[in-house]
Amino acid sequence: MKRHLISATDLTRDDAVLILDTAEELARVADRPIKKLPTLRGRTVVNLFFEDSTRTRISFEAAAKRLSADVINFSAKGSSVSKGESLKDTALTLEAMGADAVVIRHHDSGAPHRLATSDWIGGCVVNAGDGTHEHPTQALLDAFTLRRRLTEGPNGGVGGDLEGRRVTIVGDILHSRVARSNLHLLTTLGAEVTVVAPPTLLPIGVAHWPCAVSYDLDSVLSKSDAVMMLRVQRERMNAAYFPTEREYARRYGLDGDRMARMPEHAVVMHPGPMNRGMEITAEVADSPRCTAVEQVSGGVSVRMAVLYLLLGGAGPADTTPADTTRSDENGQPA
Amino acid sequence: MKRHLISATDLTRDDAVLILDTAEELARVADRPIKKLPTLRGRTVVNLFFEDSTRTRISFEAAAKRLSADVINFSAKGSSVSKGESLKDTALTLEAMGADAVVIRHHDSGAPHRLATSDWIGGCVVNAGDGTHEHPTQALLDAFTLRRRLTEGPNGGVGGDLEGRRVTIVGDILHSRVARSNLHLLTTLGAEVTVVAPPTLLPIGVAHWPCAVSYDLDSVLSKSDAVMMLRVQRERMNAAYFPTEREYARRYGLDGDRMARMPEHAVVMHPGPMNRGMEITAEVADSPRCTAVEQVSGGVSVRMAVLYLLLGGAGPADTTPADTTRSDENGQPA
Amino acid sequence: MKRHLISATDLTRDDAVLILDTAEELARVADRPIKKLPTLRGRTVVNLFFEDSTRTRISFEAAAKRLSADVINFSAKGSSVSKGESLKDTALTLEAMGADAVVIRHHDSGAPHRLATSDWIGGCVVNAGDGTHEHPTQALLDAFTLRRRLTEGPNGGVGGDLEGRRVTIVGDILHSRVARSNLHLLTTLGAEVTVVAPPTLLPIGVAHWPCAVSYDLDSVLSKSDAVMMLRVQRERMNAAYFPTEREYARRYGLDGDRMARMPEHAVVMHPGPMNRGMEITAEVADSPRCTAVEQVSGGVSVRMAVLYLLLGGAGPADTTPADTTRSDENGQPA
Repeated sequence: MKRHLISATDLTRDDAVLILDTAEELARVADRPIKKLPTLRGRTVVNLFFEDSTRTRISFEAAAKRLSADVINFSAKGSSVSKGESLKDTALTLEAMGADAVVIRHHDSGAPHRLATSDWIGGCVVNAGDGTHEHPTQALLDAFTLRRRLTEGPNGGVGGDLEGRRVTIVGDILHSRVARSNLHLLTTLGAEVTVVAPPTLLPIGVAHWPCAVSYDLDSVLSKSDAVMMLRVQRERMNAAYFPTEREYARRYGLDGDRMARMPEHAVVMHPGPMNRGMEITAEVADSPRCTAVEQVSGGVSVRMAVLYLLLGGAGPADTTPADTTRSDENGQPA
Repeated sequence: MKRHLISATDLTRDDAVLILDTAEELARVADRPIKKLPTLRGRTVVNLFFEDSTRTRISFEAAAKRLSADVINFSAKGSSVSKGESLKDTALTLEAMGADAVVIRHHDSGAPHRLATSDWIGGCVVNAGDGTHEHPTQALLDAFTLRRRLTEGPNGGVGGDLEGRRVTIVGDILHSRVARSNLHLLTTLGAEVTVVAPPTLLPIGVAHWPCAVSYDLDSVLSKSDAVMMLRVQRERMNAAYFPTEREYARRYGLDGDRMARMPEHAVVMHPGPMNRGMEITAEVADSPRCTAVEQVSGGVSVRMAVLYLLLGGAGPADTTPADTTRSDENGQPA
Repeated sequence: MKRHLISATDLTRDDAVLILDTAEELARVADRPIKKLPTLRGRTVVNLFFEDSTRTRISFEAAAKRLSADVINFSAKGSSVSKGESLKDTALTLEAMGADAVVIRHHDSGAPHRLATSDWIGGCVVNAGDGTHEHPTQALLDAFTLRRRLTEGPNGGVGGDLEGRRVTIVGDILHSRVARSNLHLLTTLGAEVTVVAPPTLLPIGVAHWPCAVSYDLDSVLSKSDAVMMLRVQRERMNAAYFPTEREYARRYGLDGDRMARMPEHAVVMHPGPMNRGMEITAEVADSPRCTAVEQVSGGVSVRMAVLYLLLGGAGPADTTPADTTRSDENGQPA
């Protein structure tokens, strides 16, 4: 595995499966009396957020703390960044302060990549969403959720293979880093992806993407194992390329009727927060087929796994209950 | 005891006494070499604040950290809440992330109640102030302070009974969650409450409240064991129902002359921050009879007790110095 | 050593050397498997910031956490301070909540001094920058960096003496707390300081300062062991007393040509964040002679040392690897 996680394309199929398996192991920590592992004690994780995103920030924060890392939140609003400090100077500062991992959220596509390919940072860089580019841990948590819902692992548990599973991604594909990362990761894992959007919300080169393309949601529902609804960004809704709100909800929103046309086993996904009444109706959002809440929960496990593996964990074996419970109790590293 | 703390009316007299006794035990932790207990290690407390309140937030944060919990601060400003996320979706998100307790401050009366009575949250909900409704930990810390100042416990220590003590609450009763929670809790504990305010700052149904009502501060001072001055909210002072600033200070402010008419043993309370020169003069605020600072200090102990009891502590016995010092030192749960 | 650190003038030469030596010991913690000491476990450090300064705040936060203290961030923006709470009431509140150290950043020169000389606070006060007055930990980290770059310690390591070293400070001396604290500390340590600025950016009484004064940067470069470039505050650049941007960069900016005139061993310092192209060119900023990044790194070590010594550490001996590694691992205090 690479030292950084910038794009879902950084991950081979083996890498992705290792992260997902590790996340499954780490999810079990939540069932212990002390829901914490000492694995990253003494390590510092910095949440470097140039964009507000409380949900993503606290998910990484919870993940890091559950591994006993120290977390420092750095919101670039009101910081020297707003006084004109360059990304480079910010990075060098965090490096000098001893950051072992930098989780970066940035409005510019490519900022995390610039950070990771520079020699500014000695630690790991994790992309927590950059512009319209990528959001790889979102794709991982989506895959984690799909494995739990759609597959069975070797011993009747979760952890099976997504090979051949059909995932439909619906909404503003053009601007969605969630769509982009999911497309890459799902394809790597062997799933078949279809993207559905109004023509104005599809990127120019979409014909060359490794996925099917459709403008018609109704035609693909019955052939989907999962339908992933993207969040409509309200700030984009008045743009010329955007359908009217009513038109969008009518043609690309998921309601009970449409959900009924999905196969019985199929699930509805949403990265949250949901615009009820817009891309998804309350009925669908609150249905047991909607995995939005499980995705959030999987997010903490997946981010624990990413931090654990990037910061030098040796893989799932290290987290077996016996060893770690003992080491947990006296606060010693295994 | 119930699983949540939303209103002072949630507490029976036994509940309240248990919290106050536990707070007394926990207050002693501050005297140890390591001022920390391992009781809540691995638990996550989320401070979900829809309103700024640095004082209350850091009091809960200090309380949780002193019990070794992980704390995540979630300020709803600039979060997806401002993008239109519902309280429900926020709650489901926190639950999915593994929050064991959610401490909520909200501008809407009733929001914590909605959270607690939903099935959105599996953990405990603690109301840290909602609209003009309640602020139960404030009432508990006030009772904690009153017990220390006005009573003697069984062995000559603190921890006695507030039965029959006379507490006068002065100010904007209409809008005050502090007044409301104190009225409930003090009544439960057997104290006798009088509220004093200009007629326009009393709620319509006050005649049915279990307290005496007066418009005349001077007439009740000599019959009070404690006089609790409410903070004037400057943003309300220009409202039509509010007296002029000068008029208010003259009729309802506590100055040295008025304090001199209180019984010798009686104390002055204030939830802070104080408007010196408005509801309280600097002379009174800085007098040893004013308990404002002790209230803040008691706040941390009381919030430790609430978190400890709600999250599964078994009561005061568990915190006896001998056991916990040992378990504290090697970081193991008792 | 005094209980507080408000001004560089609080430190005798022995105090300063003790802090710098302790910082050297503590810097080694970063090389251990667990980069953390249990020294301040159970202690609470409050970062009380009335001015935004993410860099300084996270440096203190990292330092405190590396010593296992609990950290509470209190940003005065949006707190009751903005509702008119006095510094006194804020201080009493933090004291009552059990703050062992208050790290204060304030726009008013003198606020930390007021805090420290009051009887509001029982813990330690550390000045993290007040108005145009002082920033003593910045001076300490600068001295720490100078010792590492310019001197050799007794055993061929770092830690030698700054006696007789020539340091030139360049820029807006009038408004710079960094300049003021450095002048005091460097003088205490026996260094010879020259300040260089346009006449309008020098304080009236500078002739009485224990330093040489020059308006001509070029004339002092060849006689400097270190040239410390102050950050230009862009908000001041339109003031009448300020040269034009172009004029300033031409006369007082450090570029490659000027750096070439410095002695071979001499270094360039900058407190960061740097305005590349203004007081320093990118070429100089990125040169190995520029210590800006080392200064940041030294900042964490120096702040660890200050917190360690003020909060009762017994000096460098306590941090010898052998003892602390053992105590670190089982989380017990030494």
